[in-house]
This record gives sequence, structure tokens and C-alpha cells, in this order.
Amino acid sequence: MTVAVPAHAPSSLIARYRAVRAASMALAAPLTAEDCAVQSMPDTSPVKWHLAHTSWFFETAMLAQRKDYRVFDPAFAYLFNSYYESAGPRHPRPRRGLITRPGLDAVLAYRAHVDAAMEDFLAQADAAQGAQALLGLQHEEQHQELILTDIKHAFFCNPLLPAYRTEAQTPRTAVPLAWRAHPGGIVPVGHAGKDFAFDNESPRHQVLLRPFRIASRAVSNGEYADFIADGGYRRAEFWLSDGWARVQEEGWDSPLYWLRDDDGTSRVFTLGGLGIPDPHAPVSHVSFFEAAAYAAWAGKRLPTEFEWEAASADLAHGEVWEWTRSAYDPYPGYKPFAGLASEYNGKFMVGQMVLRGGSAATPPGHARPSYRNFFPPAARWQFSGIRLAEDV
Amino acid sequence: MTVAVPAHAPSSLIARYRAVRAASMALAAPLTAEDCAVQSMPDTSPVKWHLAHTSWFFETAMLAQRKDYRVFDPAFAYLFNSYYESAGPRHPRPRRGLITRPGLDAVLAYRAHVDAAMEDFLAQADAAQGAQALLGLQHEEQHQELILTDIKHAFFCNPLLPAYRTEAQTPRTAVPLAWRAHPGGIVPVGHAGKDFAFDNESPRHQVLLRPFRIASRAVSNGEYADFIADGGYRRAEFWLSDGWARVQEEGWDSPLYWLRDDDGTSRVFTLGGLGIPDPHAPVSHVSFFEAAAYAAWAGKRLPTEFEWEAASADLAHGEVWEWTRSAYDPYPGYKPFAGLASEYNGKFMVGQMVLRGGSAATPPGHARPSYRNFFPPAARWQFSGIRLAEDV
Amino acid sequence: MTVAVPAHAPSSLIARYRAVRAASMALAAPLTAEDCAVQSMPDTSPVKWHLAHTSWFFETAMLAQRKDYRVFDPAFAYLFNSYYESAGPRHPRPRRGLITRPGLDAVLAYRAHVDAAMEDFLAQADAAQGAQALLGLQHEEQHQELILTDIKHAFFCNPLLPAYRTEAQTPRTAVPLAWRAHPGGIVPVGHAGKDFAFDNESPRHQVLLRPFRIASRAVSNGEYADFIADGGYRRAEFWLSDGWARVQEEGWDSPLYWLRDDDGTSRVFTLGGLGIPDPHAPVSHVSFFEAAAYAAWAGKRLPTEFEWEAASADLAHGEVWEWTRSAYDPYPGYKPFAGLASEYNGKFMVGQMVLRGGSAATPPGHARPSYRNFFPPAARWQFSGIRLAEDV
Amino acid sequence: MTVAVPAHAPSSLIARYRAVRAASMALAAPLTAEDCAVQSMPDTSPVKWHLAHTSWFFETAMLAQRKDYRVFDPAFAYLFNSYYESAGPRHPRPRRGLITRPGLDAVLAYRAHVDAAMEDFLAQADAAQGAQALLGLQHEEQHQELILTDIKHAFFCNPLLPAYRTEAQTPRTAVPLAWRAHPGGIVPVGHAGKDFAFDNESPRHQVLLRPFRIASRAVSNGEYADFIADGGYRRAEFWLSDGWARVQEEGWDSPLYWLRDDDGTSRVFTLGGLGIPDPHAPVSHVSFFEAAAYAAWAGKRLPTEFEWEAASADLAHGEVWEWTRSAYDPYPGYKPFAGLASEYNGKFMVGQMVLRGGSAATPPGHARPSYRNFFPPAARWQFSGIRLAEDV
Repeated sequence: MTVAVPAHAPSSLIARYRAVRAASMALAAPLTAEDCAVQSMPDTSPVKWHLAHTSWFFETAMLAQRKDYRVFDPAFAYLFNSYYESAGPRHPRPRRGLITRPGLDAVLAYRAHVDAAMEDFLAQADAAQGAQALLGLQHEEQHQELILTDIKHAFFCNPLLPAYRTEAQTPRTAVPLAWRAHPGGIVPVGHAGKDFAFDNESPRHQVLLRPFRIASRAVSNGEYADFIADGGYRRAEFWLSDGWARVQEEGWDSPLYWLRDDDGTSRVFTLGGLGIPDPHAPVSHVSFFEAAAYAAWAGKRLPTEFEWEAASADLAHGEVWEWTRSAYDPYPGYKPFAGLASEYNGKFMVGQMVLRGGSAATPPGHARPSYRNFFPPAARWQFSGIRLAEDV
Repeated sequence: MTVAVPAHAPSSLIARYRAVRAASMALAAPLTAEDCAVQSMPDTSPVKWHLAHTSWFFETAMLAQRKDYRVFDPAFAYLFNSYYESAGPRHPRPRRGLITRPGLDAVLAYRAHVDAAMEDFLAQADAAQGAQALLGLQHEEQHQELILTDIKHAFFCNPLLPAYRTEAQTPRTAVPLAWRAHPGGIVPVGHAGKDFAFDNESPRHQVLLRPFRIASRAVSNGEYADFIADGGYRRAEFWLSDGWARVQEEGWDSPLYWLRDDDGTSRVFTLGGLGIPDPHAPVSHVSFFEAAAYAAWAGKRLPTEFEWEAASADLAHGEVWEWTRSAYDPYPGYKPFAGLASEYNGKFMVGQMVLRGGSAATPPGHARPSYRNFFPPAARWQFSGIRLAEDV
Repeated sequence: MTVAVPAHAPSSLIARYRAVRAASMALAAPLTAEDCAVQSMPDTSPVKWHLAHTSWFFETAMLAQRKDYRVFDPAFAYLFNSYYESAGPRHPRPRRGLITRPGLDAVLAYRAHVDAAMEDFLAQADAAQGAQALLGLQHEEQHQELILTDIKHAFFCNPLLPAYRTEAQTPRTAVPLAWRAHPGGIVPVGHAGKDFAFDNESPRHQVLLRPFRIASRAVSNGEYADFIADGGYRRAEFWLSDGWARVQEEGWDSPLYWLRDDDGTSRVFTLGGLGIPDPHAPVSHVSFFEAAAYAAWAGKRLPTEFEWEAASADLAHGEVWEWTRSAYDPYPGYKPFAGLASEYNGKFMVGQMVLRGGSAATPPGHARPSYRNFFPPAARWQFSGIRLAEDV
Repeated sequence: MTVAVPAHAPSSLIARYRAVRAASMALAAPLTAEDCAVQSMPDTSPVKWHLAHTSWFFETAMLAQRKDYRVFDPAFAYLFNSYYESAGPRHPRPRRGLITRPGLDAVLAYRAHVDAAMEDFLAQADAAQGAQALLGLQHEEQHQELILTDIKHAFFCNPLLPAYRTEAQTPRTAVPLAWRAHPGGIVPVGHAGKDFAFDNESPRHQVLLRPFRIASRAVSNGEYADFIADGGYRRAEFWLSDGWARVQEEGWDSPLYWLRDDDGTSRVFTLGGLGIPDPHAPVSHVSFFEAAAYAAWAGKRLPTEFEWEAASADLAHGEVWEWTRSAYDPYPGYKPFAGLASEYNGKFMVGQMVLRGGSAATPPGHARPSYRNFFPPAARWQFSGIRLAEDV
């Protein structure tokens, strides 16, 4: 695996490794072993699986190179490989919730085993190995976000609607929406500089944009509620054909996690349990289909991922991932990472839409303006919202 | 709920209550909280759910009558009702594995709460209440068998194939199969006497049988292996039409839990983990379809449930439930239990086949010759086997 | 194939052959080639397929024995075999509607070819061959009923709701329902005498019945409407568990073919097109689940197939097939027909319920009191109705 | 509906109308009424439906404006609306094959009725109406291609594999594959000029391309056979993740319509029946997934739709639609047609890939270099092939 990134001093790498690994543990801390074992739908994974899989990644991509490394348990290669065909057969994704053994305790022991070996590895790592380690940490940060989105979904499937943590609900004040103008022209997009980036952000290249305007902030719950009140979910004219079909099939009439009490009061399920939707917070947990329908209703459109990137310096973002009007296609001249990581991003470049920005569940410092997140257009369990754009 | 059974002295009832409840706890003892939470298919339930549901049954059918009873948690009525429409809405059966909370600890506390109240209830129980309690205990015994069948299936879904318990594998000696002749004629069937029986065993009535012969023991693994070796799973002529379709769809080529090593050695998954099939033990985990196909291949047939009952005194049985050639229809004059228990048996009297006898997983003393177990013809996760019969 | 029936003079056999074959053609006469090609669900078949399959049966079971017989088209063995495993592979049942070629014309030519050869065959037939021919004719009569039920379903799937034929709608007068008492005891059931009967009606044997009473006529549309008006489809307490699940899944709220105009007027789709339900006609196109739920609502039960047969001489029947409370199990000592016909009935003896009596779509003279029709409990596209019984 | 196209003289429009409508009839000429009624999968439609729907389009988008127009049959609006939400409810797409009535004769009468009215309409058409008529004709030409792809699929579902027409199979000579270099830079894409184009080809705009090379011709059957022989369908490393999943689920091991005789000889099903694949003809009936896997195996990539368009003047194309590496996203500033046609293209702009070029089944003159065809990445029943590209 060759990942071109600058050399890091071993000591700083070890510190970063410890911090990232500790952050994963902290996310699991409020959960019982039972909570960590459940899988609520094929798209999600058990928290325990995330904890193990991220360790498997370090073990497989790095530690296995070392002759003196003792594999923790040979069976884990089958259990905790996610989708790497080159790493051999694996447990079927929809059945991850059936793995009651190894238990959480054993998975934590696995983490400790890998951590000890990785400290050793990092202390002696050359530049290429350091780069591999950085990829492993970025990978773990992505799973940290998934730990939150997946346990949120699992708890929502429990009629008791348990809270994952206490969340202060401070009412927010309205932020007026402004329109940022961009003159278009030839602009560079993609990753620049020497810091880590994923292969799908490269090569940096130029694109030609028309002039456009883009909203200064994401669409709010209150604005989205107006769409609903205006019959948004009942009027086909706003919807892409596949989106309209999904509305019918699934009976969508609001974002995921919006509920109504018996008396009609709106509620929203959060990691802090059942709460009241804040009209001034960004709407979240909408699919691309809903984002596009909202934009059509508003007489606007979604930005392309290149418009988003070109304008990003002027935008308030980071609370919700923002659906763009761009399908997840490869950049011109795209080359996947080598080795195991060749399957990291490239093989998913069909049938998905790009999201930009990052969410409140994204680990701090993980995202950047060139970062390309991607999900299928019907996905709603991520913290995904809407930003509007328009032609000039 | 009126269940006509004789009065029991409170003290003996309390002792029996304690013994049955303790037996359930003993079955869960080898399991982790994670093990107890998993549901491996819609037909099975988590062990934790069995532990809670059996308590819910006592609470709903008995304790709720008492004004001074404090319900442990009002939400449990929704979570742990199995299929009783008269007791209100309930959590969908295929989603029982998503209930990570209440955790196992909370469920054990629920059991303790119900146990304390039941001891009080039983101390003052009149005859009708004693009868209700007996039904609750029989109900719990049925779930004890399901705890074993369901955890076996869950562990089989785990690629590690964990063992539930240590099981001594003592090779058995061959028992010759003898044919017991029965003269037929008018014979009584159904429950007689004053001991507990389920509503589906009544009313006792007379049936007219032709002379027949019935095998003295169940079909063995070795005999079943001959059927497989003779192309049993590839020859349509032995199979009922729906059975043959199932063979194709599911790729059946042996009983559930039979495996092959890479070198072709036969293995069988048991509660003791992976073992070697004993040719002299009864074949188990076959569907009705497989039982009927085996009988056709052997040039015999399955007994009807009435033949089985009429001949039962002469038979060695109790290791595996035995599929009969009788659909699960109501007895003439059948009346369901009253109250909650009216939904216990009667509403399932279509689409199922009767099994007789009891298995090694059945709590001792639970079954009796008139006992009618029932499952759909494709079910294989129960300890179900085959007994042959023939016309004279 | 050995079917034990008395010898028929060739001339009478030929006349009967001609009459039956002509009756099939008459049923197809109102239909276009397009009508004859359509398959509206996997349970039904195209009319063209029925016309061809019945010819294939004569060709395969009889004509193929003759050295001088020239098979009409060797490909037809694959296309028009229904479910006979012993006759080789066949076109998948759910795809029968995709066979646009051979067209209806070619199928009619096939019929003519088989008819010519059969006349020759019958002229020289010995007793065994005559028996085979009788079975072939009975078989064709069964498909005549299916032609009607299947085209009715196909036309119902067409939003234009075309009429198959003109049907006079003469309002009927109410017939009071009387209860016929039967003393029970040992009664003979099954086919007696030398006329043709299917293997599933044999052997004639004795059963022991309790005294019972049985309704003199089938339940009427008006009576069934009372069940609906009383919330029959919304009250779980009347339903078998699988039936209630089906009500929810399919949204059943009336018999198949009952419709409502925009103004709420009840309509019923018939072979004569859209009409007004006659309150005094028997309710039809109900499943076993609905029949059993109606009986529970009425405080009665369905008769067993043996009660029905024992009482049949006293009953008005023949307008609708009547669901009994008997699963389709083999009679004691049951032996299937030999040869191809061994797959005719026996392999379906699981998962189905017995219906007795015959319907207005049954060819005259086809049914008899010992006749056992059978369908899965959810089937509704047959002309199936309800007769009540009760214990004494 | 406003479609900006130049004025046509009525007489030339009428001539064009007649020619296009006659071409549809000619395509149906070899088919029986039964052939025209069948629908072999939800993606396809009956030929009869195509004949009716194209007429419905003229009726609804044009004739309905005229007060003196008499609708042929008011029920047809429901039966023959494809997906236009603004035109009201419609018959479910997967059930189009159940419409045996109106029969083919009635549909032909419908066509004649619309034709007569359209001649009148065209004789008086203003520019806007002329533009509408042109759209209707382009629409009908698209359905002409579908008539061929859909009947091919239907005939392939028939075990007899009938031929739609006689096709001369002239062996082709090998054409060497050359690589055309393109310097990249800012190039215009999208429709230019005044002739008809679909809304999705506009607005014409500039894109910035890197230098690239593109193959002079499409990949041949022989070249594709090398991919298969090299394990192409068994090696995950060439496949997009969703493509690999589809290979497993559907058991793909060759393009659709490739077959093997019992002796292993390769065969290919064509509109002329079963034939021998010509190694020098372009491979056809591959999905985007297969196209992308082939390119990966060949060490190349698919061109983007803009590369294709920029290079198109130098390419031999038109035998098969060519999958591009571009998802079907809207062009910057895209505005859908107005009125009914607003649903023509825009609402499908998600989940699909762009194909360019045209096929042997495309009506002559229908396609152009800016033409954007689109299908889901797994679609194989179109005449879809592969062109390679590479970075410089």
C-alpha cells in the first residue's frame, strides 16, 4: 500500500494513534455489551464490530508485514473483514449482529493486543509505514462517526427510545440565510498540499464553473417544516422518479427520526433521546431524494460538489453533511491507493451521491473542503442535510 | 381463564413454581448477556426475551388481577407479549433481537419482582388460580425447550460454532428396530384424568383405527445416512411437492446441523459444539418434508398422531419429537381455554403438522402420550425426528 | 398407470371424449388469442396453456405407448408438463404467460392432432386403456373449471373489468337456513362403487363421528355482509393466526371480487362483468381463513370433510366449493395411482384444506359426495364458500 | 410545453409524421397479437403498449388542446400513461402484460384515430405546435428501439427461442483497434444549432478536459471472450462493488443472450434467432458493470461522456450504445421542457449512467453526438457495448 504523505516523527504518530484509539473507546463507554452487539439493519454495524474491524485494519494492513507479530485470533480475519476481497472471504454483512462471541470483552482484549503491537510498529515506522498508519487512523475516525450513526439507529428501533448520552438542548437563534456569489471560471478542485487525503480527492485538477450563488448556511428544521406543511411529501412534481417511488414504498412524510406524539406534537429522536425539534438547527437525516425535492420546492437547486468546494471558504458548514447534485464519479486520472486500500474508495464509484462538509458526529479535524463523503441517494441514517444553490 | 385442573396445596405449588423458574435460570447460566440478546431468525427468540416473556405471562394472566400488584415496567407489556391479540399491541416478532435495553440485568430483576409477587399469589391461590399458575409453569417449560433450540440455532449462525455446554459423547450401541403390531379398532385418544393438559389434547374422544404396525424406535443417523447415500435429496419421487420445492430453494442435502469438513468427514453441530454424528443415535433436526421423504424411500409411512398415541405404551420415545402424518386440526368438540389463554393453541390450527413424544430438550415430566406438539412442515430447528409405520 | 374402473364400450368412450374436449373449446370460444395467453398470477395459468396441457396429458399418458404415434411437437413436453417430475423437466410455472409461441392457432392444431390419435386409441382401447382415458377426461374437466377461475382473475386484473360472457342477473329469493342433525357413529366415507374416482377418495373406510348438526345451505352474501359490518375483518378474535396475518398483509376487507364504487355502492365482479351482489346468493371467493373467521363470528364452526360427506344427501350444494375444517391428509391405506398419475394427488397432501361439493363452474357430473378438492388456506380465486356446522 | 425548435413547413411535418408512425407499424408487422401483448419483465413493455402509449402521447400533449378532438377512449389515459404524474394515475408498470383488452386490433384503431386527428393538427400547427409534434416523433422513435429490445427479451424467455426476423449472418472481418488522441482543453458540449434535441442535452456549455486517448471502435465479441477466458467473471479485482454483488446474485458469466450448447459451443440469441457469435462484431448486451470490469481488466478505462462527445467525429460508432464513465447528472443551468414533457428526462437524473452513440436498433437519424441515453448500471437488455479510453 503506497499512500503518499509526508513523514511524521514517530513520537507524534504514537500520540495521534493513542488519541484516536482512545476516542473510539470513549464513544463505546456509555454502551452495554448488549448495545454493542446489535445490528439494526444491513447498512449499519454493531459497535463491537466497528471496534474490532478498525483493529483488524491495522493488523492486516500493517502488523501482518512483521514476522514477529502474533495474530490475536486467526478467526477474526473472517469475522472482521468488511469488504476487502483481496483479504479473503468474510462474514456476510447483514449477519454481523449474530456474532455474540467474541464478546465485547474479547474485542477489547483484541484492541489492547493490536495497540501494543502498533506502538512497537510506529516506533520503528519508516515514511511509508507512517503513511499507512495515518490511513488507519483516518479509517478509524470514519468508523467513529458510524458508531454514532449506527447506535442512534439501533436505539431508534427500540420502542423504549433510549438515550445514548445527555445532550443539552439550548434553543438556537435564527441565522438569516444569505447568498454567496461565485464568479465561476476555471477553479482548482481536489486535494492540495502534503497532508493526508483519501485517494478519491485526487488528482487535484481544474474544472470550469458557471457563475452561481450558494446559500450561506444549511436549510433549517423550520424551513423544512414549511416544505412538509406545503404538501412536499405528497406532490410528485418536486421529486426525482426514484425518490417519489421511495416516498410511496416507505411512507416517508418527514425526515428520519421525526415523530409525532399522540396529540400531534412534533418530536425528534436524538442521541440524547426524544426531544423537541429546534426550528433554527439544520435539518438532518434527510436523503438525497428529500434534499433534491426540497430544493425544487424552494425554486432552487443543490450545488455540485465542485461549486461547494470552490465556495467553501465563505460558508458556514460542519453541522450536517450536505448532499450535492454530483454523483460519485472518479476524478480524471484517478488512481486508487495500492494494496489492501485499493478497495477503499474506488470500487464504490457508482450509484452514490457526494456529500460535502462534515457533521457534528465527524471527529474534529477529520474532514476538509476537498473531502468527498458518499452514500446512496435513499440513505437517511447519516447526519445529512441540505444546502441550496442557484444559477445567476 | 378457566383451566380445569385439580387443586394443589399452595406449598407444593410454590415449590413447583420455584423449581420451574430456577430451571429457566439454569439454562441461561452458561450464556453471556450478548448471547441472551441475539435473535438468529424470525422463528427464534432471544433467550432474554424468553426469560422476560414467561414472566410477563404470569404478570398478565395472574398478577394483574390483584389490586395491590405493582407492574414492574408498563413498557414490558409491549415488549414481551408474544402473540396475544387480546393483550394489546406488541413489538414485532422479527425485531426481538433489537431490544438491547432492558438489558439482561433488568430482565433478571423483572423475574425477581414477578417471583416475589407470585409467591404471595400462590400462597393465597384458590383452585382456579392454582390452575392458572400450573398453566404458567407449563408455558415456561415450553419456553425452556425453546431456549435450547434457539440458542443452538444462534450459535450455529456464528462462524466460530461455539459450544453451549460440555456434552459427553458416548458412542451408542445399535438397537434393532422391531415392529409393534396394533389391532386397530375403536381407541380412545386425548387427555384423560385430572392432571394438567393443554386444551388441544381435549376432548378425549374415540377414533376408529385400522390395524397397523409401528417401529419400536426412531430412525437413526446411520439409517438416515443410507437415504442420503441413495440420492434421497436428489430424487423427486420420494418427496411431497412442497418439500421438493424447499429442497431446491434451500439447497437441503442433509439434516440441519450436519456439516462436512474440507476432507469430507461428516460433522454435526450440537449444544456441545462440533462433533461426530453417532450412527446409532436418532436422526434429529429434520423437517416433516424430510421425514415423509425418508418414509417413502423406506417403503413405509409416518404414523398418524392417533396411531402413535394408541401404540405409545409399547414404544421407546422421548429423544426426539416425532413427526406424524397428521395435520394439526382441532379435536371434535374442541374448546379453547378461556381468557388470555384462548389464544394459546387454537389459533394455530392450520398449516402445521403434529409431533408426538418429546425430546432430550423437553423438561422432564413435561410431555405425555396425549401431548400434541406442532410446527410447520419445513421447520428443522427443533429436535425433530422420524418414526416409521406401515399398514398390515 | 392402473386406474381401476369398469370397462366402457369404445363407442361410448369416444362420445364422452368428444363431448369433454368440445366443452373445453366452448369455454375458450369467447376469448381472443391475447386473452388466452395471459397469466395473471403464479397460481393461475393461461387458457391456452390449459388447452395444451390437457392434450399433453393424453399424449404422454396414453398415445406415447403406441409405436405408430407421431408426437406433435417434441418441445411441447417441456412447455406443457405441469408438475410431473417423472415426465422430465418443464417450463417454470410462473412463466407460463411468456409463451406467446406456439400461438393459440398452433395449440388448437395440437388439440386436433391429439384428438385424431385418441379416437384411434379409444377405438382399440382395452379396459386399462379405457380407464386411463377416463382419467384424462376427468383431468380435462378439472382444467375446465380452472379456465373459468383463471380467466376471471385475469380479467379482474384489467382495469377495464371486461366481461367473459353475458350473465343474466335474476334476483334470488331468500332461502331459510335449516339445521340438519346427524346422529354420528361409525359411518363409511370415501368412494364406493365402480365409477371413476380419484385415488385420494380411497380407500373407502369407516370413521367414527360425534353427533352434529350442519346447515342446510351455504352462507349467503347478505349474511357475510353482516360479518363485515360487525367489524369481522378488524377483530382478531375470530381469526386463525395465519389468517389474521394475511388480513393485515393483503389488506383484505371483503371477499375477492367485491368492490366499492366511489359513492360506496357495493359491486361484485363476475364472469358477466361488474354487477350488484345478490344478498341471497352464496358468498363466494373467500379463503379458508375467512370461512373459519366467519364461522367463529357466527358462534359455529366449519364441518369436517367426513361430517360433510356423511350428511351430504340432505344438503343443498353445488354452487360453491365448501371449505371444510379438515386438512388434506391421506386416507388410511391410501395408495396413489400408478405411473404418471402417481403424482396426481398424493404429493400435494400437506398444507392444503379440503373443499367439498362442487361449484357452478364445475362441469356437470364431475363432482360427487366423496370428491376431495383441495387448496391452500389463503386461496380465494376459486368459487369457494362457507357452510356452517355445530356440535350437538 | 415549450420546446424550442425551428419552424417546419406543415407538409414536411406531415410527411415525417407518416414515416415515423409507419415505421412503428412495420416493426410490429412480424408479430402476432399474442407476441404484442407479452411483458417479460418489469423493465420491458408489451409491443402493443408501445404502440398505444406513443399515440397517447400525441393525444395528451397535442390533441387534447383542441376543443373539437374526441378522445378515442377515456380509459386509455389510465392504461397508456407511462410515468407522467401530471397526467394523472396510471396502470402499474409491472402489470402492463395483463392488458389483453384492448386487443391489438383496438390499439391499431386507436393509432388510426390519432393519426387522422394529427394530420389535421399538423396541417394547422403553429411553430410551437410543430415543435411539440417533433418531440412526439422523437418519443416514438425511442419507443421503436424499445419495441426491438423488449420483444427480443420476450422471445428469449420463450424456451423455443423464436426468431423475430430473418437476419443474414455475414462473417465480419477484423478491424484493428486504433487509439485516437485528443489534446483536452476547454471544449463545448451539449446540443448546438436549431435542430431538435432533448432538454437533457442543454444548455450547451464548456467543459475542461485533460488530454486523453480513445479507442477507434467498440470492443468486439472476440476481445470480450478473452476477458471471460481469463476469469473475468470470477475475479473481484476488476469489478465495482455493486457489480460484483450482481455477478454473484445473478450468476452472470457472459453477456445477456450468450448461451452454450450441451457440447459447449457458444451461441448467441439475436432478433434472427439463435446464431454463432461473430468475434469481429461489437460485444453487446453488457451492463455498465461489465463494461467497467472489462476496461479494468484491459488496463484501460471507460471514457467520460464529454470525452466521448469531444472525440466523436473521429470514432466509428452506431452499432451499440456505449457506456460512459459518467453518471447521468444535469448539465449546469439545465431546465426541463415545460408542461407534460417536464417529466420526460429530468426526473430520472439519479442512479443511471450515460450511454452515447446509438445502436443498430436506433432509428436512422435519431441519435446525434450530443445525445444522452441513460440506463441503470445493471441493465443488459439494451444493445449496449464498450468503448475504451486511457489517460495520456
